[in-house]
Amino acid sequence: MSPIRGYVFDAYGTLFDVHSVVEAGREVTSDPATLSATWRQKQLEYTWLRALMGAYVDFWVVTESALRYTIRRLGLSATEDQVRRLMEAYLALACFPEVAAALERLAGRPRAVLSNGAPKMLEAAVTGSGLTGHLEHVISVDRVKTYKPSPRVYALGPETLGIPAGELLFVSSNGWDVAGAKAFGYRVAWCNRTGAPEEELGARADVVVGTLDQLPG
Amino acid sequence: MSPIRGYVFDAYGTLFDVHSVVEAGREVTSDPATLSATWRQKQLEYTWLRALMGAYVDFWVVTESALRYTIRRLGLSATEDQVRRLMEAYLALACFPEVAAALERLAGRPRAVLSNGAPKMLEAAVTGSGLTGHLEHVISVDRVKTYKPSPRVYALGPETLGIPAGELLFVSSNGWDVAGAKAFGYRVAWCNRTGAPEEELGARADVVVGTLDQLPG
Repeated sequence: MSPIRGYVFDAYGTLFDVHSVVEAGREVTSDPATLSATWRQKQLEYTWLRALMGAYVDFWVVTESALRYTIRRLGLSATEDQVRRLMEAYLALACFPEVAAALERLAGRPRAVLSNGAPKMLEAAVTGSGLTGHLEHVISVDRVKTYKPSPRVYALGPETLGIPAGELLFVSSNGWDVAGAKAFGYRVAWCNRTGAPEEELGARADVVVGTLDQLPG
Repeated sequence: MSPIRGYVFDAYGTLFDVHSVVEAGREVTSDPATLSATWRQKQLEYTWLRALMGAYVDFWVVTESALRYTIRRLGLSATEDQVRRLMEAYLALACFPEVAAALERLAGRPRAVLSNGAPKMLEAAVTGSGLTGHLEHVISVDRVKTYKPSPRVYALGPETLGIPAGELLFVSSNGWDVAGAKAFGYRVAWCNRTGAPEEELGARADVVVGTLDQLPG
């Protein structure tokens, strides 16, 4: 098998811990874990639905829509200030503890982020977590105005890096993203941080790791 | 506003009670409601994901994949016979109690089903619940090999009935389906059987009813 010539990382859940928004939720509910999980699930659903409808709006708008739905769904109430503070948690996400060293170990071959996130969200997360020097490319789906797992999104990796998908290692903690990237033609590592069951989408990761420091070099 | 010249109904959750599969679940779990709800959620996710990936398989295959995922996700075990019996519950769904009379009241204008269901699944559900004489058209997404809310699916309604979407009433109990049909151009009734909160997808139903006998005639 040909060597790996570059790395393409998913952002949310893979590099950045989305559930660090839990803390921000304490202001509006005594059960911020349920708020965070419901919000995340709805956020993903809205990306899939809007992509299929051909009704793209960027991830900041999707994320706020999903939050407003979640607040109503859980019977909570929140002021506009509280909504704003919950949204701002997305601009100050923590990365997982091993990420910087794991990226450093892969230096020498191009390292990219390919994410649903809107450009301003990705810039804030990458800068805020000190990863700027560890990433050669930060690619948002906003360039093609649709969402993962559309092949149009996955095509941005090879296009930007100038390397065929089959010589890139795509890394995601999201099982459905793993399936989408594999179906597109990447070599794929599933970073299964939570011991999640494998999705039944007809495409499997080439390698499964628990954290990013276990990636093949 | 122009009069309504025909009706297009979603099937699962709108005409047919998907949660009647709960009973079949008692054989493999003491909490069949969670099995049924998780299975349904995953089934929808897989339609969205496969449609976006361009990796269509029919709804029977998606439904079985979602069931197998759900069994693993919930830490259950099931024999192949039990999986088969759970799947067969989809061939023997009950319709909601008011459906036959509600369809009868709308007779004289074409009444269609437009559903994610595979042709054999729709035929079994329509025949088994005695609705054959109340429906002029049963349309499966299988004709276009993708899933709702793709506009290619919604286009099958006007094409089959020969009536513009703006003169058809699309009826669904699924909020995301309501948004998809409205964005396509139908007039839309949301049959909100469960008091669900409205989705935040930028398109609203023209009318909201609790059961199908409240539809505008």
